[in-house]
Amino acid sequence: MSTVSKTNQKQLQAGIDEFAVNAYETYLPALSVDTVIFGFHNNTLKVLLLRLVDTPYFVLPGGYIQKKEDLDDAALRILQERTGLTNIYLEQFYTSGKTSRYKEDLFQETLKKSGVQFPANNWFEQRFVSVCYYALIDYTLVDPQTDPFFPEFKWVDVSKVPKLIFDHKMIIEKGLERLRADLDQKLVGFRLMNETFTMADLQKLYEAIFDKKLVRTNFQRKVLSLNVLERLEKQYNGKAHKAPYLYKFIKHKH
Amino acid sequence: MSTVSKTNQKQLQAGIDEFAVNAYETYLPALSVDTVIFGFHNNTLKVLLLRLVDTPYFVLPGGYIQKKEDLDDAALRILQERTGLTNIYLEQFYTSGKTSRYKEDLFQETLKKSGVQFPANNWFEQRFVSVCYYALIDYTLVDPQTDPFFPEFKWVDVSKVPKLIFDHKMIIEKGLERLRADLDQKLVGFRLMNETFTMADLQKLYEAIFDKKLVRTNFQRKVLSLNVLERLEKQYNGKAHKAPYLYKFIKHKH
Repeated sequence: MSTVSKTNQKQLQAGIDEFAVNAYETYLPALSVDTVIFGFHNNTLKVLLLRLVDTPYFVLPGGYIQKKEDLDDAALRILQERTGLTNIYLEQFYTSGKTSRYKEDLFQETLKKSGVQFPANNWFEQRFVSVCYYALIDYTLVDPQTDPFFPEFKWVDVSKVPKLIFDHKMIIEKGLERLRADLDQKLVGFRLMNETFTMADLQKLYEAIFDKKLVRTNFQRKVLSLNVLERLEKQYNGKAHKAPYLYKFIKHKH
Repeated sequence: MSTVSKTNQKQLQAGIDEFAVNAYETYLPALSVDTVIFGFHNNTLKVLLLRLVDTPYFVLPGGYIQKKEDLDDAALRILQERTGLTNIYLEQFYTSGKTSRYKEDLFQETLKKSGVQFPANNWFEQRFVSVCYYALIDYTLVDPQTDPFFPEFKWVDVSKVPKLIFDHKMIIEKGLERLRADLDQKLVGFRLMNETFTMADLQKLYEAIFDKKLVRTNFQRKVLSLNVLERLEKQYNGKAHKAPYLYKFIKHKH
């Protein structure tokens, strides 16, 4: 763990001071938003994490709700600020409100160790109840944004999530559970795919999300029975009889 | 709409005054809990509503989260205070946070019309984000509690919910949607049944929740394939060959 450099510490202190003054004016107290951002890459399901400055610990991207802002809009704004994407599929899945979620307040403790001073009655000392959303994004389009508090981002396999700050690891598990439940019911999976794909591509996505191998014939029968796929013409490429069919999702309201 | 009597108004004013002073000390600001309490009776799915004093309007039972209380515990406490039941199946399903949910603040407006005075910066003037839970209870065990603000309760068919205060009607719809999704996945339905039941009883419960007729043979095949029912011995009653089998749910962690 590196020590915060003098410049960095000054920047952090200025950030803390500004936030501690303005946050109570700007945001709803006691409430936060956390986001589990899922992406699909190399046949694995990934989640976006941010590293807290001067620690080896990672955290979910999150933020607060402006006083005159709808809850869902706050989640969208936070995601947009963090990923640069405007057209994001977002699903609220859980609100985390145990008092014990702050038992190890690595956020404040680590910054204090770095010499950052927190003003009395500061914003971060509140008990936050956090409304959690998951997002499905096209991995290739994202340019995650860092800042002085979170100078590094990382895409991590959902099966290899490290120790996280607060109860964020549990939140990822709950988000994954809900993604699995939504996958068939709301057909959300296509948000993680290119516009067209083969049946094999789609099976790989399902296998990554459910973390198990599926039988090809059963999978095909089940997916086709949902009546949500449109089969496209095979393109002639000289070996057309060997090329797999391409599919795309029929558009629906999600 | 009757006018509040002098005594009633005094009681209400005292209640408001006490709450406005103490609530900020006792509860997390900006956050509330609302509960959709489902019960099953006469083959219909019902929901418990409370009437707001001096109005014809009904509202969901709700409350606030104490500063050192877990969110789920707050929901349990609120339900217990309202129904007298301690062993309640509760499921968090949604957090409602649109700014427009207060567009028609019938709560304050109606009470003001009745002559009740709200102190400046009172608790009820806050914008609340509400964490919503549904509960499944045995209709026959409940003795709903009223109070000066909510002098009457009513069990209403979910298909006949009247205009409600705030966004509570939408919350009931979301709760019902989630109950349907949970019914198979989490097998929550048995909370609404007696300990033993016939296949026909169970089908009636499913039909009430999904608001449609089901084909008996398909229903039986599906339910039995879940491997969650234990078939009990037929009791000899002289017409044993005609008596239907009784079933009970195999205990599991929910």
